[in-house]
Amino acid sequence: MPYEHTSTRQIEFSETDMAGLVHFSNFFKYMETAERDFFEAAGVDLIRTKPGELVGWPRARVECKFSAPIRFGDTIDIHLAVKAVKDRAIDFQFRIFRRNEDGSRTQAAKGHMTTILAELCESGDLRSVELPDDLRARITEAPPEALKRPTSK
Amino acid sequence: MPYEHTSTRQIEFSETDMAGLVHFSNFFKYMETAERDFFEAAGVDLIRTKPGELVGWPRARVECKFSAPIRFGDTIDIHLAVKAVKDRAIDFQFRIFRRNEDGSRTQAAKGHMTTILAELCESGDLRSVELPDDLRARITEAPPEALKRPTSK
Amino acid sequence: MPYEHTSTRQIEFSETDMAGLVHFSNFFKYMETAERDFFEAAGVDLIRTKPGELVGWPRARVECKFSAPIRFGDTIDIHLAVKAVKDRAIDFQFRIFRRNEDGSRTQAAKGHMTTILAELCESGDLRSVELPDDLRARITEAPPEALKRPTSK
Amino acid sequence: MPYEHTSTRQIEFSETDMAGLVHFSNFFKYMETAERDFFEAAGVDLIRTKPGELVGWPRARVECKFSAPIRFGDTIDIHLAVKAVKDRAIDFQFRIFRRNEDGSRTQAAKGHMTTILAELCESGDLRSVELPDDLRARITEAPPEALKRPTSK
Repeated sequence: MPYEHTSTRQIEFSETDMAGLVHFSNFFKYMETAERDFFEAAGVDLIRTKPGELVGWPRARVECKFSAPIRFGDTIDIHLAVKAVKDRAIDFQFRIFRRNEDGSRTQAAKGHMTTILAELCESGDLRSVELPDDLRARITEAPPEALKRPTSK
Repeated sequence: MPYEHTSTRQIEFSETDMAGLVHFSNFFKYMETAERDFFEAAGVDLIRTKPGELVGWPRARVECKFSAPIRFGDTIDIHLAVKAVKDRAIDFQFRIFRRNEDGSRTQAAKGHMTTILAELCESGDLRSVELPDDLRARITEAPPEALKRPTSK
Repeated sequence: MPYEHTSTRQIEFSETDMAGLVHFSNFFKYMETAERDFFEAAGVDLIRTKPGELVGWPRARVECKFSAPIRFGDTIDIHLAVKAVKDRAIDFQFRIFRRNEDGSRTQAAKGHMTTILAELCESGDLRSVELPDDLRARITEAPPEALKRPTSK
Repeated sequence: MPYEHTSTRQIEFSETDMAGLVHFSNFFKYMETAERDFFEAAGVDLIRTKPGELVGWPRARVECKFSAPIRFGDTIDIHLAVKAVKDRAIDFQFRIFRRNEDGSRTQAAKGHMTTILAELCESGDLRSVELPDDLRARITEAPPEALKRPTSK
């Protein structure tokens, strides 16, 4: 069962800021790209995770540590690994690598995201729900070494 | 009945790009800020424009001509004027002014937006609907001079 | 010499808005993706177009007409064609196609962008400059039929 | 010397996503709004913090915990407090409050940001530099109670 995924993106001009670097808020969008691709590869419908009901994946907590800048023209690899599958939430770890011209990679950021499966109450509030069995059957937690090793792609 | 509105915004760092200027796609977000403020001032609910039904305002056509750059630290005035109220759509004109240190203003952009009132069909497609009378009673078309004169704010 | 390019993107969750559709301002970012890819394929450096000088491509005018919604989960093709190469500017035409499940395509939008080659004056203002010969040698105007035919990709 | 600041924003339509809530990446833009306003109120130039040199404030680490959703139409207060002033970095704490119709507030998120003062090396990399005395003379660390108490605004 899948527990990791690597997505690749080229940096867009609109993602830079006047410091000449990618604005840090975009790193979270990159994480979301890898999350979408991971779920798609695992055969999980991100929007209709629970049959017959529209659910969402509100974030409980997100974090990012930045270690190297990313610029327009760069290509990045976004590595997602499932750190923990909980009753009503999933913990993801992300590492973002900048591809260098000499073929090496530089780790640009390391992130975490705890995302909750939730349905919308009539009051308009969100209520967490248990992860359905179908989802549990399609993904699993990453072994410790997958959280550490460089992406092999 | 109201036919114009001026909103004011300070430029955010995240709205700049590596050229040191506001990324042009943000000008359309500025127009949307003025549209929201105009509707709010006119007492129109942008989301529940038609009682009991969720509707949207998909854009049919948007345009922007840029005449001066805007930068981080700038304050801008966004002037909206109702150019035409149609059966199922509204034409807005926007002018965006950069406030200069000497108290003068420089027109940074002029925009247009045609926005349609629409409801969601069961097929998932959008279907245009007629503007409700309540909306028509709350806004009106701008006289020609309001489309041309500098904002008086 | 190249005069057109088609880029492909998958819609990101962060590009949607509460109407359930891609927010219209993102269509301009999609156009920029195709512009970057077109220049890269043509061997033009978007940032260092004029040797030894940092230049920019401020937009003089942009426009987009919307004909069908795009949603999360959709894949789009963004077709760029060079409409005109001017002394100091380039006119691009864009058409954005949504890929349907049955293999057909729906045109979701048609856009135009006039972009000026500019250098930064010491005053901080932008000054347009002539397109360098090297750039002119690498791109050309599209024949009329390329502006109309569906993407063949 | 100032150690806290509260900025107020109205949610923009373009900040929502198809779940009907503000996309979480925007919370970091809200923090940046409060940071800009705090520096401006303290008389610190965010861009030219070190006289005669262009510097930047790359983020070393950012984090956000989400406790209540924010929607289009909401007004939020973003409370910044200086948690620590270090040799080459500042730690900020942020709390984001949603204003409710009954006049109460709901804490929607709590965030942290460690931001480094940096100059650009000729190699293109960023190098951290010491906070200038002028900056140190203008801001100070918040007393413990300021990190906890509800905004009084």
